[in-house]
Amino acid sequence: MRPGIIMDEKIKMAHGGGAAASRRLIEQVFLKYFDNKILRGMDDSAELPPCKGRLAFTTDSYVASPVEFPGGNIGKLAVCGTVNDLSVKGANPKWLSAAFILEEGLETALLERILAAMRDAANEAGVLIVTGDTKVVERGKADKIFITTAGVGEIPEGINISAANAKPGDAIIISGPLGAHGVALMNARHNLGIKSDIKTDSAPLNKLAAAAAQNGATVMRDITRGGLCAALNEIADAANVAIELDETLVPVEADVAAACALLGLDPLDIANEGRLIAFVPQQKSAQTLAAMRAVRYGEKAVIAGTVVSSGKAVVELKTKAGGRRILRLPEGEQLPRIC
Amino acid sequence: MRPGIIMDEKIKMAHGGGAAASRRLIEQVFLKYFDNKILRGMDDSAELPPCKGRLAFTTDSYVASPVEFPGGNIGKLAVCGTVNDLSVKGANPKWLSAAFILEEGLETALLERILAAMRDAANEAGVLIVTGDTKVVERGKADKIFITTAGVGEIPEGINISAANAKPGDAIIISGPLGAHGVALMNARHNLGIKSDIKTDSAPLNKLAAAAAQNGATVMRDITRGGLCAALNEIADAANVAIELDETLVPVEADVAAACALLGLDPLDIANEGRLIAFVPQQKSAQTLAAMRAVRYGEKAVIAGTVVSSGKAVVELKTKAGGRRILRLPEGEQLPRIC
Repeated sequence: MRPGIIMDEKIKMAHGGGAAASRRLIEQVFLKYFDNKILRGMDDSAELPPCKGRLAFTTDSYVASPVEFPGGNIGKLAVCGTVNDLSVKGANPKWLSAAFILEEGLETALLERILAAMRDAANEAGVLIVTGDTKVVERGKADKIFITTAGVGEIPEGINISAANAKPGDAIIISGPLGAHGVALMNARHNLGIKSDIKTDSAPLNKLAAAAAQNGATVMRDITRGGLCAALNEIADAANVAIELDETLVPVEADVAAACALLGLDPLDIANEGRLIAFVPQQKSAQTLAAMRAVRYGEKAVIAGTVVSSGKAVVELKTKAGGRRILRLPEGEQLPRIC
Repeated sequence: MRPGIIMDEKIKMAHGGGAAASRRLIEQVFLKYFDNKILRGMDDSAELPPCKGRLAFTTDSYVASPVEFPGGNIGKLAVCGTVNDLSVKGANPKWLSAAFILEEGLETALLERILAAMRDAANEAGVLIVTGDTKVVERGKADKIFITTAGVGEIPEGINISAANAKPGDAIIISGPLGAHGVALMNARHNLGIKSDIKTDSAPLNKLAAAAAQNGATVMRDITRGGLCAALNEIADAANVAIELDETLVPVEADVAAACALLGLDPLDIANEGRLIAFVPQQKSAQTLAAMRAVRYGEKAVIAGTVVSSGKAVVELKTKAGGRRILRLPEGEQLPRIC
């Protein structure tokens, strides 16, 4: 710590320069939120305790706009998203890295709110942020803040979760109502003035995913960009199976459904940040569903579809009107920069 | 693969949307360069083979401007930088993640040149890029391309490299001439017209670092942002020792020295992307130096300083003129966006 020199109210280019100002930013801001023994080592790499068994490794960049929205901010997304990517692989998320690209002029107070949300999400998930990096680019060369997290988790013995596992007869469980994150973010971005208290669903799903994996789930995905439609298509392709989804069973809260109708959005295509799907053999589906409902963020889990056959990769929707249609990957970009 | 629809010549917002266009970008561009069995799994996380012993974990974002410069591009930096952060911890780099933030309108051909450089650097270092992510932001909300890599490596039994290990009597080895990366990048950025063939020093240093660690090095750092000055100050602080650096022994090539004089830059403060320092107890220093010189990128290694005492963290320079001065962390930002 350099006593006497306090942190600036706004981020300057020098905060990314690797010298005195960088150090002040790290010591006075980042370490205030992320302090732990491994991070304190401040070497070029963090040394992790010995790990048992197989590891899962993942990364995501977060460029959400706006960076703050009802129920969360880009920092919460960055921690929960990587926790969830590890969790749906059946891993226990353990260690996270966090790399920041800051736009010159970013308010330090906003950065601190984002870091506080990261700390809170990491605490809830039981993960440590053990290594990081900060770069600063000139005003107009980024959009306030981009965050990239990577994560390492341990896959317990006997757990083998993969999209390729999907088999005819599997029940498809959706962990909770869809679409809230997308609507909350669009409302905040465009000042749509939709009067509602719709909040992002962003949440760490590691305990929920562990409950599913320990009770029979063989395939899991978190339903992010591309929504349920993309997640189901990816699984159908990976396992070469036909999936049937029953639209009347897909959970969407009434206020989200109303907002989607107003905005011309389909809840099946919207990104969520705290929802997952789990595939489970039919005979275990009641057990898995009960286990998921007993865990936070899984209370409203439902079975909404099945794997009907193998040999052809397709996702079919039984519509509310009683018809059937193929659910294809949307071609364009419905909701840019949603995560 | 979606036959019949070919990749666009420029990146569009839809390429970050998680649906059909995203998939084309991944299948037709990214997998062309990064294909391997783990990445092919295309699950939310990569599953790594069982690992032995302790792990090292690190991350860095790369925002270099311009993105191409003599001897390399931002992709080469992104792979080598993370390989090197693992290497100077004494780890064998094994697995990398790569997350891309692309600006709408980026030329696909430029992206491919960057990916090709990443592939080549990963091949040279013997690491696999096993997981990744791509986001796209609107034109003017980023600067062509930002890349964040994270890396996981294995620390061999008996290797314990840490800045805190520095002890009085240690010799300080610099692995090669300083300053080339900074000068190459500034020359490219500003069309300075310095007639020279100065190229970035960007290189994967894992074999060099392993040779140093196996032959007595107890402290290593790669000399990136903040230059040699910042690296030595960090070590002095971490170990609470006084370091003496002999300016006449610090290796700087003549053309780089001339360019620095012209630009008003100090080679001691400039980022390198393929240089490291190693601290080694005096009695082993000849062995370590010989081992480093026998490895690629270490041919010009020299001993340029010593740890003189403990109890006070300070870095002192014996100048070419015969004087002495304290080397402090520079306060401002000499070279923004150099990596």
